[in-house]
Amino acid sequence: MLTLSLIGIGCGDPEQLTRAATRAINTADLILIPRKGTAKSDLADLRRTICADVLTSDTTRIAEFDLPVRDAAEADYRKGVDDWHDAVAATWSQTIASHLAGEGKVALLIWGDPSLYDSSLRIARRLDPLPTIEVVPGITSIQALCAAHALPLNDIGEPFLVTTGRRLREGGWPQGVDTVVVVLDGGTAFQSLDPSGLHIWWGAYLGMPDQIIMSGALAELSARIAALRQEARERHGWIMDSYILKRRP
Amino acid sequence: MLTLSLIGIGCGDPEQLTRAATRAINTADLILIPRKGTAKSDLADLRRTICADVLTSDTTRIAEFDLPVRDAAEADYRKGVDDWHDAVAATWSQTIASHLAGEGKVALLIWGDPSLYDSSLRIARRLDPLPTIEVVPGITSIQALCAAHALPLNDIGEPFLVTTGRRLREGGWPQGVDTVVVVLDGGTAFQSLDPSGLHIWWGAYLGMPDQIIMSGALAELSARIAALRQEARERHGWIMDSYILKRRP
Repeated sequence: MLTLSLIGIGCGDPEQLTRAATRAINTADLILIPRKGTAKSDLADLRRTICADVLTSDTTRIAEFDLPVRDAAEADYRKGVDDWHDAVAATWSQTIASHLAGEGKVALLIWGDPSLYDSSLRIARRLDPLPTIEVVPGITSIQALCAAHALPLNDIGEPFLVTTGRRLREGGWPQGVDTVVVVLDGGTAFQSLDPSGLHIWWGAYLGMPDQIIMSGALAELSARIAALRQEARERHGWIMDSYILKRRP
Repeated sequence: MLTLSLIGIGCGDPEQLTRAATRAINTADLILIPRKGTAKSDLADLRRTICADVLTSDTTRIAEFDLPVRDAAEADYRKGVDDWHDAVAATWSQTIASHLAGEGKVALLIWGDPSLYDSSLRIARRLDPLPTIEVVPGITSIQALCAAHALPLNDIGEPFLVTTGRRLREGGWPQGVDTVVVVLDGGTAFQSLDPSGLHIWWGAYLGMPDQIIMSGALAELSARIAALRQEARERHGWIMDSYILKRRP
């Protein structure tokens, strides 16, 4: 039968790789590596670097494939994602079928952790025939952000919310929490908040050589982070950043 | 000067160790290992197992110390925690001083990730003199739980809340989210909720050989998980479990 192993590889630093991830890479018959166009080519490069670095098995093959592009013109966001997941699943199936005769172990190297803001588990469930799915957890950018700032994420015995930039922009400060982690923010949703009493711990390119971090009172840093972010984005051609906000009485 | 390295070692499976953690263990001059009494001796044992397994440096010394016990009789919970952090910091300082002459690299192996529901960062800031603090992220039980169930933690573009058993018991289902992760539940706070429309993904001893998981409609599983948990706790002498709840329309 077919096993699909979704392997979390961390968020940019090959040192974040776990022993389980290294083992899963080496026991795969086939590793699928998506080509994502030029913008985020650093990310595909990390996958190649990791394979070159840890792969000692000489029976493991690597197959690159072109990742379908999501139709950004589709007005219905959910339908756009749904169609895109179908298209990616079809591409995985074709690539697998062209390399394996219906059985073996296929691996995908997943940025961060396969369970957190990643589509692979949902796409995997659309494969036909359905493979056995195995998940290897990986260090996320949230963890790299906390580590870079030496920041305890939660206050003692207190909850925290993980949300997206869009949600924060649309809904404001969430009810019932004093700590909010913001991911998938294509912009600077923190600028939509009243900054009084808020502190920010921000980071971009976490775990990578170009990592930038900044922390302090949001009122003082909001415009500086926005400018720094814009400048870094132009220089690199892309940016991935996340941040933690805490409300202090 | 003195560097204190807080090294996340994952939640029970030595395979969760990252390359960065292995490197940090091997570049330490001194590794502090707390003795925690008999109840959770499996946890201290994991630290010893990991040291025995990955330590190749012959200049690294290991020092065990007795962890002070928190005064459970202290009516003010915050004060109890505060006093305990002071006592632990004093013990770290004494143990470090008796092995190192004011400089070098000290490491502590932290269950899970040092940034998540762990006191080490707060205790480290009470050391005198204050060391340089370095954090190495590790796989958490939340990630091991998601991996064991092959469960995407967040719904697409949606937030999730991480909270404690006590909070869930006292406050009921939190506002504004359909996904809740519950940690540090000494009991079965899920039994305090109206189970209609709720699903649970539960796990205990995650990542360890005795790992148990169970998932399904909360209404059907609530009593079964409570009984299983009680039975496992009696058999092992201790239990660490966590769970994810999702509300489905």
